[in-house]
Amino acid sequence: MISLADLQRRIASGALSADAALAQSQEAITAHDKDLGAFVCRDQNARAQNAGPLRGIAVGIKDIIDTADFPTEMGSSIYKGFRPRADAPVVAALKRAGATIIGKTTTTAFAANDPTATVNPHNHAHTPGGSSSGSAAAVGAGMIPLALGTQTGGSVIRPASFCGAAAIKPTYRLLPAVGVKCFSWTLDTVGLFAAGVEDLACGLSAMTGRAELLLPASIAAPRIAVVTQDFAGEIEAASVEALQLAARAAERAGATVRTLTLSKIFAEAWHIHTTVQQFEAHQALAWEYRERYDEMAPLLRGRLDESRDIPPAEYDEAQAIAARARAELAAIFKEVDVLLTYSAPGAPPKGLDSTGDPRINRLWTLMGVPCVNVPAYVAEGNLPVGVQVTAPFGEDGKALAAARFLEQALKK
Amino acid sequence: MISLADLQRRIASGALSADAALAQSQEAITAHDKDLGAFVCRDQNARAQNAGPLRGIAVGIKDIIDTADFPTEMGSSIYKGFRPRADAPVVAALKRAGATIIGKTTTTAFAANDPTATVNPHNHAHTPGGSSSGSAAAVGAGMIPLALGTQTGGSVIRPASFCGAAAIKPTYRLLPAVGVKCFSWTLDTVGLFAAGVEDLACGLSAMTGRAELLLPASIAAPRIAVVTQDFAGEIEAASVEALQLAARAAERAGATVRTLTLSKIFAEAWHIHTTVQQFEAHQALAWEYRERYDEMAPLLRGRLDESRDIPPAEYDEAQAIAARARAELAAIFKEVDVLLTYSAPGAPPKGLDSTGDPRINRLWTLMGVPCVNVPAYVAEGNLPVGVQVTAPFGEDGKALAAARFLEQALKK
Repeated sequence: MISLADLQRRIASGALSADAALAQSQEAITAHDKDLGAFVCRDQNARAQNAGPLRGIAVGIKDIIDTADFPTEMGSSIYKGFRPRADAPVVAALKRAGATIIGKTTTTAFAANDPTATVNPHNHAHTPGGSSSGSAAAVGAGMIPLALGTQTGGSVIRPASFCGAAAIKPTYRLLPAVGVKCFSWTLDTVGLFAAGVEDLACGLSAMTGRAELLLPASIAAPRIAVVTQDFAGEIEAASVEALQLAARAAERAGATVRTLTLSKIFAEAWHIHTTVQQFEAHQALAWEYRERYDEMAPLLRGRLDESRDIPPAEYDEAQAIAARARAELAAIFKEVDVLLTYSAPGAPPKGLDSTGDPRINRLWTLMGVPCVNVPAYVAEGNLPVGVQVTAPFGEDGKALAAARFLEQALKK
Repeated sequence: MISLADLQRRIASGALSADAALAQSQEAITAHDKDLGAFVCRDQNARAQNAGPLRGIAVGIKDIIDTADFPTEMGSSIYKGFRPRADAPVVAALKRAGATIIGKTTTTAFAANDPTATVNPHNHAHTPGGSSSGSAAAVGAGMIPLALGTQTGGSVIRPASFCGAAAIKPTYRLLPAVGVKCFSWTLDTVGLFAAGVEDLACGLSAMTGRAELLLPASIAAPRIAVVTQDFAGEIEAASVEALQLAARAAERAGATVRTLTLSKIFAEAWHIHTTVQQFEAHQALAWEYRERYDEMAPLLRGRLDESRDIPPAEYDEAQAIAARARAELAAIFKEVDVLLTYSAPGAPPKGLDSTGDPRINRLWTLMGVPCVNVPAYVAEGNLPVGVQVTAPFGEDGKALAAARFLEQALKK
């Protein structure tokens, strides 16, 4: 993978030109993307900017995020050739920080479940995950140092786990979801993929102008609670192994590690995530569902068919449950610094007919808290498996610092 | 004005056809809009649907809200000829309920401060208010029974007050702001303009599928607290008169009326509304500001110039203040049913070089609570002045019922 922080240091010192950094990505895409299919389109003439912390950094943008300079097709023929007038704010923020948008990456249709043709860079017979398939694969394959995706269920953390990339789903609305095709306004969250945790911190800090997101010079050993989410169904051996490895490594490195059983309200919140998501999706995609039903991708259309006519009162109750769970989670964080849990129920599944299951990610998207995927284990078949570090709402710097602590502990 | 509820009753009984109801609006627009300038474009061939609670209802859509069948130009040459692919969810909801979108209504550029050419229907020498200028004028002039606008500062309640229309700014995110050009994602709220409170209730209930928003057969006399917002600057005699008239009428009709002085946290929240709005606007309009600076409307551009580089920490502190004020407001509502306050600092100002001042509306937009404008008084020059009824977050039905109580009390 290409380290953003490393490129930054080499560009800042003059050892590497911004143009040469960008050329490295262009060459990697030319060499590898014909086999991976991570990009929808690319600007082969893209040039580096000459200022800004992200100069020379080639960024891939999930194709549900508006770009003024590229079509934005939402992974659906319904949006074939669609040209937004403006860049989404997150794209504008990248450009302002000096980055170069090198192309658009594949997305499942409207960021739902119908797989793209993208393959897992570590084993082409396996899924890269979704819905941010192209962004995860492009970073995991070492073609680009930074990519944007979005998560409504588990569409940032899961594909990052599957592709062996680091990723952050920041606190809800730290990055605006404006100019991003909406699936659920309560849940949709823009996230970043990069080679490692320091790279995420540099990218997110540059986009937001928040210096406090950069990693501190020395990271204090965090108090970690390991959470297994028993309500979320069975976990495969590879993910169990990854979580145990991570917990042990953190403890060896000096962290305080204990297990925590989440109370009943979190099982309820996990359960009603789908109510919130589908009630809102029927509004967010109302035009497409009503006017272009026959052109909708089949898995998404089936999900919408199944979830028609959720009563508003059921949605209101779901939102009330979410609010109670958020309050209880805030109380948990008075006792521990971060939570450690699975990033996915297992290694990337074989085949390209599914992008995998977001059931282990849903609760955290609904809570709105910052989550970081840290690659922790490689299962048979060269299949990456990550773990997730979660910090309190608004404490993205804490999530990144603890994830960095864990990343370094796992390397020892 | 054209009453939506009255049209509904006549269409349901067979006394009026949906086509005839629609034709009434077409004729009114043809007769009056050349003098008022409320519409950006119109479909002269628009037909009524034959089913749904809003069949035969002609609706005007503020031109920052995406429509698949009309250009969406944001009141700015930057978006000249722009065609969204899809209808915004609020537009799709109207169509699903049977309504006919008859045209797009004028908006200040990006819903900010630069006036449109629209005039006040009650006195053409005065502003109709903004930013939802066309929607307020079109309903106030009796051209259409329903229109959509948006409020970030005071862009629904103020123009409704100025144009003598009823209006509701519903609870934050009761109506999704998806597909609506963003100015501030914490504040932007889609609202409705109609002839009276019952019309608002019928429209909002049909859009959301929420029967509980319809007015009850009999409305209990509410406990009302009158709030003067002393922190928000001087109030003109016309608005003072309107508020006194409304309070006295409510009391005569049996309501419990008392005055309430808002505590210091609300003055602070009022003050930091601008911080939240401008910090987010710099992100929401980043592409336009960076790439099309010369084409931006001058008042908006000046505001953006003045508010560059608000530190993230100042924004975070503003959001924390807003959260504290929301909690304190919820506590106030344990003692009273609704708050009654000004809808605007006075009657619609003379001239078309300003859309008036949103300073009396800001706090309520930031609180996210439902607000209803009720026309209460006509000042010299045939200039309407409204008052605002505010209920707790999520209790839009309560806001509408109390507003209806007041509306009827004022007629006695």
